[in-house]
Amino acid sequence: MTGKKKTAKASLEAMYRVFTVPEAPDSTLSRIDQDISRNLAGFLQEHIVALERDLSDVEKNFSDSEVPDKPVFVSEQTQFLLDKLVANSVHTASPSFIGHMTSALPYFMLPLSKIMIALNQNLVKTETSKAFTPMERQVIGMIHRLVYGRDDAWYRTWMHDPGHALGAMCSGGTVANLTALWVARNHAFPAEGHFRGLHREGLFRALRYYGYEGAAVLVSRRGHYSLGKAADVLGLGRDFLIPVDTDGHNRIETDALRDKCRELRDQNIKVLAICGIAGTTETGNIDPLDEMADIAREFGAHFHVDAAWGGPTLFSRQHGHKLKGIERADSVTLDAHKQLYVPMGAGLVVFRNPELPSAIEHHAQYIIRKGSRDLGSTTLEGSRPGMAMLIHSGLRILAKEGYEILIDQGIEKAQTFAHMIDQRPDFELITEPELNILTYRYCPPEARKALGIADSHSAERINASLNRITKYVQKTQREHGKAFVSRTRLEPARYDHFPCVVLRVVLANPLTSREILDDILSEQRAIADDEAIQDERRVLSELSQRVLAAR
Amino acid sequence: MTGKKKTAKASLEAMYRVFTVPEAPDSTLSRIDQDISRNLAGFLQEHIVALERDLSDVEKNFSDSEVPDKPVFVSEQTQFLLDKLVANSVHTASPSFIGHMTSALPYFMLPLSKIMIALNQNLVKTETSKAFTPMERQVIGMIHRLVYGRDDAWYRTWMHDPGHALGAMCSGGTVANLTALWVARNHAFPAEGHFRGLHREGLFRALRYYGYEGAAVLVSRRGHYSLGKAADVLGLGRDFLIPVDTDGHNRIETDALRDKCRELRDQNIKVLAICGIAGTTETGNIDPLDEMADIAREFGAHFHVDAAWGGPTLFSRQHGHKLKGIERADSVTLDAHKQLYVPMGAGLVVFRNPELPSAIEHHAQYIIRKGSRDLGSTTLEGSRPGMAMLIHSGLRILAKEGYEILIDQGIEKAQTFAHMIDQRPDFELITEPELNILTYRYCPPEARKALGIADSHSAERINASLNRITKYVQKTQREHGKAFVSRTRLEPARYDHFPCVVLRVVLANPLTSREILDDILSEQRAIADDEAIQDERRVLSELSQRVLAAR
Repeated sequence: MTGKKKTAKASLEAMYRVFTVPEAPDSTLSRIDQDISRNLAGFLQEHIVALERDLSDVEKNFSDSEVPDKPVFVSEQTQFLLDKLVANSVHTASPSFIGHMTSALPYFMLPLSKIMIALNQNLVKTETSKAFTPMERQVIGMIHRLVYGRDDAWYRTWMHDPGHALGAMCSGGTVANLTALWVARNHAFPAEGHFRGLHREGLFRALRYYGYEGAAVLVSRRGHYSLGKAADVLGLGRDFLIPVDTDGHNRIETDALRDKCRELRDQNIKVLAICGIAGTTETGNIDPLDEMADIAREFGAHFHVDAAWGGPTLFSRQHGHKLKGIERADSVTLDAHKQLYVPMGAGLVVFRNPELPSAIEHHAQYIIRKGSRDLGSTTLEGSRPGMAMLIHSGLRILAKEGYEILIDQGIEKAQTFAHMIDQRPDFELITEPELNILTYRYCPPEARKALGIADSHSAERINASLNRITKYVQKTQREHGKAFVSRTRLEPARYDHFPCVVLRVVLANPLTSREILDDILSEQRAIADDEAIQDERRVLSELSQRVLAAR
Repeated sequence: MTGKKKTAKASLEAMYRVFTVPEAPDSTLSRIDQDISRNLAGFLQEHIVALERDLSDVEKNFSDSEVPDKPVFVSEQTQFLLDKLVANSVHTASPSFIGHMTSALPYFMLPLSKIMIALNQNLVKTETSKAFTPMERQVIGMIHRLVYGRDDAWYRTWMHDPGHALGAMCSGGTVANLTALWVARNHAFPAEGHFRGLHREGLFRALRYYGYEGAAVLVSRRGHYSLGKAADVLGLGRDFLIPVDTDGHNRIETDALRDKCRELRDQNIKVLAICGIAGTTETGNIDPLDEMADIAREFGAHFHVDAAWGGPTLFSRQHGHKLKGIERADSVTLDAHKQLYVPMGAGLVVFRNPELPSAIEHHAQYIIRKGSRDLGSTTLEGSRPGMAMLIHSGLRILAKEGYEILIDQGIEKAQTFAHMIDQRPDFELITEPELNILTYRYCPPEARKALGIADSHSAERINASLNRITKYVQKTQREHGKAFVSRTRLEPARYDHFPCVVLRVVLANPLTSREILDDILSEQRAIADDEAIQDERRVLSELSQRVLAAR
């Protein structure tokens, strides 16, 4: 063999090895693998560096745009990931990470994920998924039953019927919402006479054939941004996602909704769908779903409920009633990677009527042939992993009882936290928790008193100053790395809908304790006293005093 | 404590345990976890039952539609999964599973996936992903460079620029194609004068404002079915995905493409995008991308290339030239869970011009705020897992050298297999491998001879009979469970475009040997001799003899 040939052969063999030879038990990667199994919390605690590094600094470790010519050793890459990636990742499982909808996972999810990845099934078709397909159908059926509560006989008829689907597994709530509105749109403009249906002729000809000037989707101002994205993708246009005002509890005003529907009808714009929200992203409130169902029926619109966050509340005998009316929705989105405690990448949409998904049915020659059991014929995505296995395991291992405890506990904790905020003179609760989400802000007593009597101009200036301090508190606390709450902007009625920056808290991690919540408030209080923000504090104080003096 | 309270407390504690106490090292689940690490191939071999069970039989294990009231033990669920799910799943990693695009994974992908899932980052925003965001930007940059080959300075400027994105990570090729066409559609109908742009006013008003009767996307008849789905979702309508004829090698006929474009222009239909294919799903052929780029430019259309399968061919110095012209595409889809050997759920799209994704940019108040580094502002999906970490590791650990070997080897193996088919008198090669995909069918010498001289009516009857036997061979081999090839329908020019059922083979698993391929052909040969299909064989023989006798 020549030298060149020898090198080629060596490369070939090295390449084979990664497909055939397991990592040695004492390799860096194997040790981490075992570490995580033995003590996940310890692993995360040890490897994630709490103190925030500036992202532009972190970027330096990821600056090479060229794929390396020569292989890097597995151990080298592992060490790199530990030092540069894991160290600077976010400790989403930490009980003091209460700013977003990502929480700790039950331990069993990890080894189960490994089985799922080892099997590497593709759920688009049974030829690459076999038993995973009936299992996914069962998971969709279970969620369908949680929402719609049909009886055994009904599910016996429909759950495994190859010609129908009770819903679609998705990578997340965004795709679930998009799928629901895609179904709604196509269903609203079916084939008729010489018109071959929107799915074939497109939106332009559909509106022309049916004689409309546009097609709209309505949702409250607290609707998730994925709905605007869906309106864009589906060709309706973002301006045709019509925002409806909310009441003091961030719930859609049904009178305003009805008025908007009438207005659209008068403008000859088709009311395609009305979206209710069961757990607004920012404040965790639930729309009056039952009344919305009535309005949707009145206007012949598809009624969709975005329960990405709040859906699992249905497991709670104490709080489930808050979602009353959801069973009248034509479609419901629920995210498994949120309150079903499944790893990232699992959402679903269920349809009340199993005939509905046929509006988006599609086929191919090599897979998802007509009459097959392949689930890919009614999903927006094509190739998909077997995430349903993790949902299946969560639903069986935690069961109704476990999910009920998680839900009840989170809501109770949010109520406790709201009370703690009320007890602190320097904070103002902005939205009461209906579920396990609440918002509040920094607002010292003097400012609060001044806001109570200020004219609108002065109130705006005080609120603007409070915004700057609240934003500083949130950013600084995140940078310190001990705890994390998020921030958003709300327009509270009590402040004439002036956009107020608020701290947002999501209490889904069962390990978040009262003590942790207390520490978070204390740290925020201390940060508000920072020297770095003293000028702003002075501005606030002067503004407040001026109002109080003028009284 | 009362009895009821005690039970409640016990449930609460049990529920906490799953979040805090690792699985015991000797539990069923821990043992499997270790098994997979030590010997993945053995685990799959041992637990997946080769013999196919009827799916309606498998369904019985997944028939309960009710979430159980009380928790099932982790060990019980694990045993259930092993016996009912894993046992009846598909051995996609088997070297004799050569029917679809799912192959074996490098060993290191498993423990790395565990780290990824343990960290449970959400890539929609840096607040839940930190270093994962620059890492994902680097991965997108590396793929961008593989395709477009800009220089270091260019990537230094753009790769980490918060205001821009070089592409989007997606759950798979379908979402990647949809994202590309979404960008193309919005970009074609921008804001102008009083028109606020398609993204805001929708497709109906866009076409009316710009004075078109429709908007179309063109692709060869071998285009992936996801493009039809995209045309539907985007509101263009499936009939506006215009199929263009292919030549004898399943490549788009550029003259026909140009004619179609002219025809559309004459009908006042906007040519939105032209899609080239770099690796057709069914036959692995590559369109003449360079010429297509010229045509796209001529008609002012977006040029998209679906390289979901063939993209990594660019790593091969020997075969990379087959994709010449791809660097002129406005957008390119590439699936990492295909020939980058990453687990299911990882696709991406890259854009030549970093300004392009702004056509689909969106923001919210609580995340992806304007000016943030959050990658969620230009992705179709919202919450997404950190799959980029696995792509990053593949690109570094296998490197250019490793991927080149994998690509070269697969193509060489396909050529070998084509030769083996040619040597067998009972099989007919239908499409030559340009990459690592080929198709063939059962066709005994007598039938072949008869087809050579038959009139079109007799030829159709012979082909129809061959279809039935080929389909039987494919299904029966799959049921036997030793090997799997897929089947599809092609319309070969040599048979007057009569739809022929063909066996389809994808040679991406590096462990598939010549011996395995030989065994697969022998088994197929034997199945074709089954008693169960003897009537059809007799029909075929009579048809063939009648043609030959009449000569």
